[in-house]
This record gives sequence, structure tokens and C-alpha cells, in this order.
Amino acid sequence: MAPVKLLGLPMSTCTARVLACLHEKGIDFELVPVNLPAGEHKQPPFLSKNPFGQIPALDDGDLTLFESRAITKYLATKRNDVGPDLLRLGDAKEAAFVNVWLEVEAHQYSPPISALVYQRVVLPVFGGTPDEKVIEANAEKLGKILDVYEERLSKSKYLAGDFYSLADLHHLPYTYYLTKTPEAKLIYSRPHVKAWWEDISSRPAFKKVAEGMVLGNA
Amino acid sequence: MAPVKLLGLPMSTCTARVLACLHEKGIDFELVPVNLPAGEHKQPPFLSKNPFGQIPALDDGDLTLFESRAITKYLATKRNDVGPDLLRLGDAKEAAFVNVWLEVEAHQYSPPISALVYQRVVLPVFGGTPDEKVIEANAEKLGKILDVYEERLSKSKYLAGDFYSLADLHHLPYTYYLTKTPEAKLIYSRPHVKAWWEDISSRPAFKKVAEGMVLGNA
Ligand SMILES: N[C@@H](CCC(=O)N[C@@H](CS)C(=O)NCC(=O)O)C(=O)O
Ligand SMILES: N[C@@H](CCC(=O)N[C@@H](CS)C(=O)NCC(=O)O)C(=O)O
Repeated sequence: MAPVKLLGLPMSTCTARVLACLHEKGIDFELVPVNLPAGEHKQPPFLSKNPFGQIPALDDGDLTLFESRAITKYLATKRNDVGPDLLRLGDAKEAAFVNVWLEVEAHQYSPPISALVYQRVVLPVFGGTPDEKVIEANAEKLGKILDVYEERLSKSKYLAGDFYSLADLHHLPYTYYLTKTPEAKLIYSRPHVKAWWEDISSRPAFKKVAEGMVLGNA
Repeated sequence: MAPVKLLGLPMSTCTARVLACLHEKGIDFELVPVNLPAGEHKQPPFLSKNPFGQIPALDDGDLTLFESRAITKYLATKRNDVGPDLLRLGDAKEAAFVNVWLEVEAHQYSPPISALVYQRVVLPVFGGTPDEKVIEANAEKLGKILDVYEERLSKSKYLAGDFYSLADLHHLPYTYYLTKTPEAKLIYSRPHVKAWWEDISSRPAFKKVAEGMVLGNA
């Protein structure tokens, strides 16, 4: 099989989400860099891959996909036979819980944490100054979400149950950057969240991804 | 089989998303109202169903799920054998495209359209005044997204291909409310988006759901 091509950048959170999945599954791939500063993602060749003009996009033979979370699901389904069982398709209940926590990441966790990472990590790269009010509001929101995670993770080792799943994996990129900011305390002050984070971030597959996640001071 | 229990309210967009799926699949269900004004969703009995304190939640025997988009996936997978084939699980490429457009709904479409519906439909119910600046900014964002939809829908009848899928279905509730506001023109000014909307909103399953979607002046 020809390697899949991932169009993106190693420091981009959405690209990193797919990279983590590729490494977990041991899928052969080629990372094709996209020149974001030059606006390559807003021009025709790339727009034919993702009409919304964002990285990442994936080429697998004649199939082109975009949206990081759709790409990971595709890869995890296609290579259900190798590596960790990220979707638990063999058990309807477990698969349903994986889906619940995938949606929690997308709709509860991601909005406040991406706002925090934007303020603390991305904005300074472009010479901007973090807005402390925005940080405070989102730290409060994320704290409330993490209170629910703390309770959940006191009952099961991972979010969807006692197994590492795609739901945990999807949390990796933003949480990694957050732990490089003063808001790391949101993670480290909650014992079960802290243990979960230390567990999932020390997986060899993610360690390889983290090496490429260098952005500003993070 | 005992009917599933959906805890929610018919005028809530997230509940309506699940209701549309239940009707498409002809699944027997009981809608259990949650007293939002009394804060029932923020109190222990409901919090044991969804620790984030939001509707909807689903009880299927001893299985309890939350997050509307996880519930629809569970139901569509479980009843893959009846009604429209909403997930295209039998074809890896089609299933991947369904996932791409499910993520587009969640990450591109939903943020601006939910902001518009909040300003125009929800806020006035609570005596608030719509913020025209917020409306303008989100109308512009949604317009750009819909330009991509227009192009896409000029090539395939539905978002993921020439078949109605869960990706189309997930768009129904917010778009329904939007069409009751001045921003309806975002939909109706784009011929392919308009034709798609008229098609998916006239499906008998959704017409039943729309009957219950009464909120303020919408
Ligand atoms: N929901 C999309 C978001 C993609 C996204 O926001 N990508 C960023 C990099 S992490 C990007 O391309 N930003 C440039 C832009 O939006 O112009 C996904 O998960 O793939
Ligand atoms: N991502 C969730 C969102 C649920 C949601 O926002 N529900 C609203 C009603 S549409 C709610 O319960 N609002 C009350 C609250 O958040 O306090 C889902 O799709 O189920």
C-alpha cells in the first residue's frame, strides 16, 4: 500500500491530532507541509483538498478527506485490525461511550481550551498580547468541564471506560499546549485528570507527535 | 423492545436533532420533558444522566447517553437495518464523507448559525435585545461557509454524496430556526442550498419534529 499523505504542519493542533492516530496505528504516511504564512491553504490547489481552506487534509489514494476528527475516524476504522482498539466497534455500548466522549471533546472541552491556547500560545507568535479577560472567562469554563472529567476519571481509567480510545486521543494536542502555560494548573490541580493526562501524554505515539509541537514559547 | 426514553424538550435544537433521527428510523420512543426553567437539568437526578447538565439525554434500557450527535450515531448504528441508510457503513468511502460533513456541521456550520439563532430567537424569549454587531459578524461567517456548501451541492444532491445522510440531518434544527429570521436570506439566496434545504426540511420525519419547534416568534 502506498503511504497516505497528510497535508499539514506538525505544530498545528489539528494536524497533530491526526499524527497521533497515524502513529498509534503504525500507518505509513508522508507529511506534506503547507505554507500557511504564504497563504497556500487559501489557494486553489489546496482548496480542492479542503474547500474551507484549513489544514489538515488527507490523501489516501484517490480519496481526499478533511476535518481532523473525520480523518482520525476514517483511519481508526480502516485499520481497526492493528494497534489499540480506538473505536471499540465490536461492542455497541463501548462504541457509544467513545462517541459520547468524542462529542464532549468537540463541544464542551475544545471551545474553552482552544481559546486559552490561542491567547497564550498562538497570539504571542504573531506579536499579539493575551487578553486576560478572555483567559479568565475560558479558564473558568474549562475548570467546570474538568470538574466533570475529574469525577468521571475517578470511576474509569479513561474517558469512555477502562480502555484508551480515540476520545482520549482527541484531547492530546490542545492539552499539550495548555500544560506549557500558567493554566496548566487546571490540569495538574485535579488528581485524576493529572494521572490521566500523564498516562495519555506519555504514550510513545504521542511523544513522537509532541516533538514537532513547537510554537512560540510553548 | 421497550421504547427508548429521550429526556429533553421538543423546541430545543439538540433534542430536535435526536427526534429527527428517531422519526427517520421509526424507533419507538417516549419524550420525557425536563423542566429547564426550574433548573431540573442542573440537579442530581438529571446530572446522573448528563453530568454537563444539558438536554438531551437518552435512556435505552440500562444504557444512558448524552450529547445529541453521539445519540444520533448510536441510534443510526443500532437501527442500521431500518429506514434511510444514514451512516453508509457498508461503503468505507461514503462513510468517510458522511463523517467529514458531520464534522463540518459541528465545527464550521454550527458555531455561526447557533450564534445567530441565539440572538434572533432565544434571547428575545428571555427579554433580551439582539446585538446587531454579533449578528453581522456571524452572518458574514455563515455566508462564507454557505458559499462552500453552494459549490458542494452543485455537484452532489446532499452533503456527503447523492444520498441523504446523518450529516444533512444534523443541520435541520438550527437551519429551521434561521429560516424564521431575517437571515433566512443566507439560505434562500443560494439556489443549491435552497433546493437542498427545501428537500431535507420537507421529509416527513422532520415535519413531525418541526411541529414542536415553537420558540418565541419563530
Ligand atoms: N475543524 C478543523 C479545524 C482546522 C483548523 O482550524 N486548522 C488550522 C490550523 S490548526 C488552520 O488551518 N488555520 C488557518 C486558517 O483557518 O486560515 C479540523 O479539525 O480539521
Ligand atoms: N453539545 C450538546 C449541547 C446541548 C445543549 O446545549 N443543550 C441546551 C438546549 S438546546 C441546554 O440544555 N441548555 C441549558 C444549559 O446549557 O444550561 C448536545 O449536542 O447535546
